[in-house]
Amino acid sequence: MGGDFGPAIVVAGAEIARERYPDLRFRIYGRAEAVREALAHAPRVAAEAELIDVEGVVLNTDKPGQAIRRARGTSMGLAVDAVKSGTASACVSAGNTGVLMALAKLALRTLEGIDRPALVALMPTIKSESVVLDLGANTECDAENLVQFAVMGAAFARTVLGLDRPKVALLNIGEEEMKGTEKIRDAANLLRAAGSDLPLIFAGNIEGNGIAEGVIDVIVTDGFSGNIALKTAEGTARLVTGLLQNAFRQSLWTRIGYLLSRPALRALRDHLDANNHNGGVFLGLNGVVVKSHGSANARGFANAIGVARDLVIKDIHARIKTDMANFSAHRPGPRPAVGAA
Amino acid sequence: MGGDFGPAIVVAGAEIARERYPDLRFRIYGRAEAVREALAHAPRVAAEAELIDVEGVVLNTDKPGQAIRRARGTSMGLAVDAVKSGTASACVSAGNTGVLMALAKLALRTLEGIDRPALVALMPTIKSESVVLDLGANTECDAENLVQFAVMGAAFARTVLGLDRPKVALLNIGEEEMKGTEKIRDAANLLRAAGSDLPLIFAGNIEGNGIAEGVIDVIVTDGFSGNIALKTAEGTARLVTGLLQNAFRQSLWTRIGYLLSRPALRALRDHLDANNHNGGVFLGLNGVVVKSHGSANARGFANAIGVARDLVIKDIHARIKTDMANFSAHRPGPRPAVGAA
Repeated sequence: MGGDFGPAIVVAGAEIARERYPDLRFRIYGRAEAVREALAHAPRVAAEAELIDVEGVVLNTDKPGQAIRRARGTSMGLAVDAVKSGTASACVSAGNTGVLMALAKLALRTLEGIDRPALVALMPTIKSESVVLDLGANTECDAENLVQFAVMGAAFARTVLGLDRPKVALLNIGEEEMKGTEKIRDAANLLRAAGSDLPLIFAGNIEGNGIAEGVIDVIVTDGFSGNIALKTAEGTARLVTGLLQNAFRQSLWTRIGYLLSRPALRALRDHLDANNHNGGVFLGLNGVVVKSHGSANARGFANAIGVARDLVIKDIHARIKTDMANFSAHRPGPRPAVGAA
Repeated sequence: MGGDFGPAIVVAGAEIARERYPDLRFRIYGRAEAVREALAHAPRVAAEAELIDVEGVVLNTDKPGQAIRRARGTSMGLAVDAVKSGTASACVSAGNTGVLMALAKLALRTLEGIDRPALVALMPTIKSESVVLDLGANTECDAENLVQFAVMGAAFARTVLGLDRPKVALLNIGEEEMKGTEKIRDAANLLRAAGSDLPLIFAGNIEGNGIAEGVIDVIVTDGFSGNIALKTAEGTARLVTGLLQNAFRQSLWTRIGYLLSRPALRALRDHLDANNHNGGVFLGLNGVVVKSHGSANARGFANAIGVARDLVIKDIHARIKTDMANFSAHRPGPRPAVGAA
């Protein structure tokens, strides 16, 4: 029921995903009438999906704190519960991010060895795309959180991008070791010491301008800086493409120039299109919950479903648990109170 | 002697600035031989500038901590000292940012009412440009620092952008009041309470994607997030323009399309060109010190000189002192130990 377009986009996205991956089966939680209307245009999904009629919905204006009790009985709450009970392998929603996160944490709890889940997603780079986390789940983080994000982000890059040993770096205001905050330096020391025990290459610090260069596969930061970086990148991409549109409208010649360049410009737009990088994941929980961008189109929602399928089939949680246990067994210095057994 | 191109660009920039503002007079600190070579192509500056021959230079690899004692005797150190002694009204340098900041703090001390100076600069927006601070001088900041940055940033916008009552917002991960860290919420409360006592309009929170929209004139944040935002924006702009170049190279048609659109695309490039927004200022010190981008060209360096001239002529420090005194006189709750008298 969530997102800017409700069931229409969700069901159409499921239809595209079903065509791509015939092994998928859907349970659709929402108001039956609205969902059925959408299913009329989605024969594949209509033929096999189970529709669970739920009256209550989470609104975009709901706050995680107040709304959480009521939210458990909504379509979003029941979809998350289905992951908890094992009725579903994963939950994909285009709804309210904060409430989805709160519901997922409450129902699924964090993985062994992980103190806090992180919101992870892909950002476009000049080469292809890179993993960035945390994008806003944790406003403030300590060194342990950042290390756990690094391990989870690397597992995500191996799973979704198919990399063997992803390059991981900490987002910082300089590349030198002594830059930034104490928690970043502590996290760097822990990751450096872990060395070859982890299936990742720790590459030190990366600055904001390095994200788009695509040299680093996994960029690790707290939820505040990650959110600022993600949204500043979105805003800047919109600024440049907006200026570009104005430029092409300037004269008859530039309009002809635009027409001649259109196929190539379409490739540029596709490369930057958020739908092609869609699917934010709450990583570090006992279950797969994927957040589709509220403004995603059907193809974008299908991509978010594809991410969920990847994480389930390649069992990302087993990878994270193994890596965290490995890291904890070899970590230098005293172990913190909360850690992998 | 600093920046990627040394005296050649600095002197050429001074020549352009002198042409724009015939009231300017220059003192040039550096190795006489190298400076004289550059002066051969800059008749206006050569005719009036005083050349102070200094052997020692600050290197880009120097660290502020270690180098500071040695740095005081370099061309950069003596140029900053000239501001302290009143021999010069302002210092403009393209050299090592960290060392310039350290030298400026040491020689000039902070203004009454200001605990810490901030690095401020202009970022391009779809409308024109906005003021952003702190861009990296203070990795961590408290609510008092953020409020002082807001007052200083507003004074900067009035001085350099010529606005009457600039709109000021705090960079945050959501627009709602309860978002972000405690220090941001505290700063927001202080600014809201100051109300009409300050020559600014406090507009609450702004997210990263809002920076490029140009609706807010002054964006206030700590040096970590500010640096991440600035550099992520630079990197994203480079990503999009890089993809655009690739797009135009794709076929004969796109090449022709490029040729037809070139004048309009040049306007786009100019709008984003860092040289047109050049001149980072260490705001909050008893003296004007402006940092030119290391890769700036002569026009860019001339723009940085123009910023320095604006700040001196319009006496930004008097504005900041008045505003801080006003704010302190009307602030709610107990005053902190350090504050305006």
